Amino acid sequence: MSKLPNVSTSIFTIMSKMATEYNAINLSQGFPNFPVDERLTDIIAKLAKENVHQYTPMAGYPPLMNQIAKLVQKSYNRTIIPETEILITAGATQGIFTSILALVKTGDEVIILDPSYDSYESPVLLCNAKPIRVALNDDYTPNWQTIEKACSTKTRMIIINNPHNPTGKILAEADFVQLENILKKYPDLLVLSDEVYEYITFEEKHISAHTRKQLLNRCIMISSFGKSFHITGWKIGYVVAPEHLMIEIKKVHQFLVFSVNSICQVAISEYLDIVDVTKLGKFYQEKRDYFKQLLSKSRFELKPCQGTYFQVASYESISDEDDVTFCKRLITEYGVAAIPISTFYANGKDLKLIRFCFAKDNTTLEAAAERLCNI
Amino acid sequence: MSKLPNVSTSIFTIMSKMATEYNAINLSQGFPNFPVDERLTDIIAKLAKENVHQYTPMAGYPPLMNQIAKLVQKSYNRTIIPETEILITAGATQGIFTSILALVKTGDEVIILDPSYDSYESPVLLCNAKPIRVALNDDYTPNWQTIEKACSTKTRMIIINNPHNPTGKILAEADFVQLENILKKYPDLLVLSDEVYEYITFEEKHISAHTRKQLLNRCIMISSFGKSFHITGWKIGYVVAPEHLMIEIKKVHQFLVFSVNSICQVAISEYLDIVDVTKLGKFYQEKRDYFKQLLSKSRFELKPCQGTYFQVASYESISDEDDVTFCKRLITEYGVAAIPISTFYANGKDLKLIRFCFAKDNTTLEAAAERLCNI
Ligand SMILES: CSCCC(=O)C(=O)O
Ligand SMILES: CSCCC(=O)C(=O)O
Repeated sequence: MSKLPNVSTSIFTIMSKMATEYNAINLSQGFPNFPVDERLTDIIAKLAKENVHQYTPMAGYPPLMNQIAKLVQKSYNRTIIPETEILITAGATQGIFTSILALVKTGDEVIILDPSYDSYESPVLLCNAKPIRVALNDDYTPNWQTIEKACSTKTRMIIINNPHNPTGKILAEADFVQLENILKKYPDLLVLSDEVYEYITFEEKHISAHTRKQLLNRCIMISSFGKSFHITGWKIGYVVAPEHLMIEIKKVHQFLVFSVNSICQVAISEYLDIVDVTKLGKFYQEKRDYFKQLLSKSRFELKPCQGTYFQVASYESISDEDDVTFCKRLITEYGVAAIPISTFYANGKDLKLIRFCFAKDNTTLEAAAERLCNI
Repeated sequence: MSKLPNVSTSIFTIMSKMATEYNAINLSQGFPNFPVDERLTDIIAKLAKENVHQYTPMAGYPPLMNQIAKLVQKSYNRTIIPETEILITAGATQGIFTSILALVKTGDEVIILDPSYDSYESPVLLCNAKPIRVALNDDYTPNWQTIEKACSTKTRMIIINNPHNPTGKILAEADFVQLENILKKYPDLLVLSDEVYEYITFEEKHISAHTRKQLLNRCIMISSFGKSFHITGWKIGYVVAPEHLMIEIKKVHQFLVFSVNSICQVAISEYLDIVDVTKLGKFYQEKRDYFKQLLSKSRFELKPCQGTYFQVASYESISDEDDVTFCKRLITEYGVAAIPISTFYANGKDLKLIRFCFAKDNTTLEAAAERLCNI
């Protein structure tokens, strides 16, 4: 009688564990392996001795909330009010979970695109609501016609993930226009936009959902410092939402965690004064290109990647095993860990695709590529 | 159409904020104001430069889980298996919320004692379950007869808080015997035991629920390092539960936060090697006694306090205002912040009682007492 009968160990846990067991190069779970900026670790070391060890206020450490408002202003030229429109969370995951729990009710429907990161479905189920999966087009753009067909007055929320994990796809202006047209027809429909890779985009510009006038009042935007500052372990994320939604999100947050790790909040708020997050895209674009070059002589076929630090690759010319089996063999026989893309599909659709994380130092990427080129 | 229509800003937020505004001595929200052990802040400063900034495993940093098992062994002579019976959470609050969400279903009933800390009711409501409030006796012991009467096959969980916030009461062996007798009659009934003050007890010994043979299979025990190591801001707590329950709790945890702040988990795991947590009771007993002595010439009447760092006091001889009004005036006119006990009651029962937090350095306690003795 489990409330989540279909949940088992996540593929990220399985693959990272197996990578450790077999001493494989871990390009599976998404986390960087290079050192954190010394200026940030200096701040933490300094703060250790300061008065930063007791509860911050429930919604977050006020100077960090102000810094986020500044960052949003600088990045998107949008003014948000820290006190009423920002919430600091224990990672983006907690932001997603809390927002869904606060806003989705028994019987509601929530549209989740397919494939999707694994964090969206369980909170919907825990609300006694119904996840409605809508397939992305073959090029991973949303199919707005099918999405519209899936909508009804029961639909409470559409969850988008932009840039998209695992495909690296980003939404274009035309996507937003179509989304907004659907929203016009359903006044109670909300958009939850998971943008944890917002600063990791390449040739195309990232459009943040909360900067769209028509979404302003309807959009819950989730982001995180884990991806932007190479500190996935810190678990500091944030939610941007209009006050009328934020009031409800904060009510749940208050009892879900009350507040978030103090010393790391203070550290990030100081770091935001000196770091230039807009350089991140270029940094990862170079990594993407280098990894692509390294694999050019391999039998993997790399798919386009517009953002995130993930590269999707087809192994069709190598094997016709299903992707989970292939990923396991990749670890045990070739010493490289990746994520099978089928695990991002509700029905486990196997397209002979796997995902590599290229947020690794060049030595690691080179070592992995050497192994992958030998297959 | 809020899912939590009755939730508003918590009394802890209100009082701490007002204390800051009026520059009052803040004995309201429960957090220590003395410096954290230098050995612990040294560890954090050192760790800043180490490889501790990426995701820990989902259930927690394994060395910390091992250390908790050791601590439990040492404190209670009970063997628990880290891999299957421990979960590290973003504070005890997240442990409570996650456990309730994982185990309580639509239509279930959950028994919450009255008065109670404010974290138990909202997660129950978010499960579409029904909180059933049962009044404690006038001396704050549980009334097991009334509790038994409130039980039925619908009852999924009884939530206990031991030592009890705000009253400082701890449960005796006889309480457990009666609880166990009730449980015998209801095989699906679980006990959630919030023991964040487990190491802050005075004359009486603390009995941890999970050390009771009859509860072993039925008990979710929640604790936290925030209270034990004066680091309420770090938000590192843990859950101890039997594997069959833990499996369900971890399923929710995986999507609620995935994992918990890495650097602070590592720091605590190293600190547990050198700290003696059993000294904490004596430390706070001295504070309790000193605070009592300081207030002996005041018009407040102090209630017995067996554990926690909270002192309940009656102001009956001072004023017949309700306790919320009195607490506000205490801040604005006398410069001391406390918590009105009525806010711990489901129906706001006003007994002219307030709660002081005595986890403060002696200078602060003296300054507060001086003001309180002048009333
Ligand atoms: C929280 S573990 C998963 C990390 C991640 O974002 C990914 O690998 O997709
Ligand atoms: C999480 S704020 C409340 C702190 C506390 O435990 C209390 O004051 O009772």
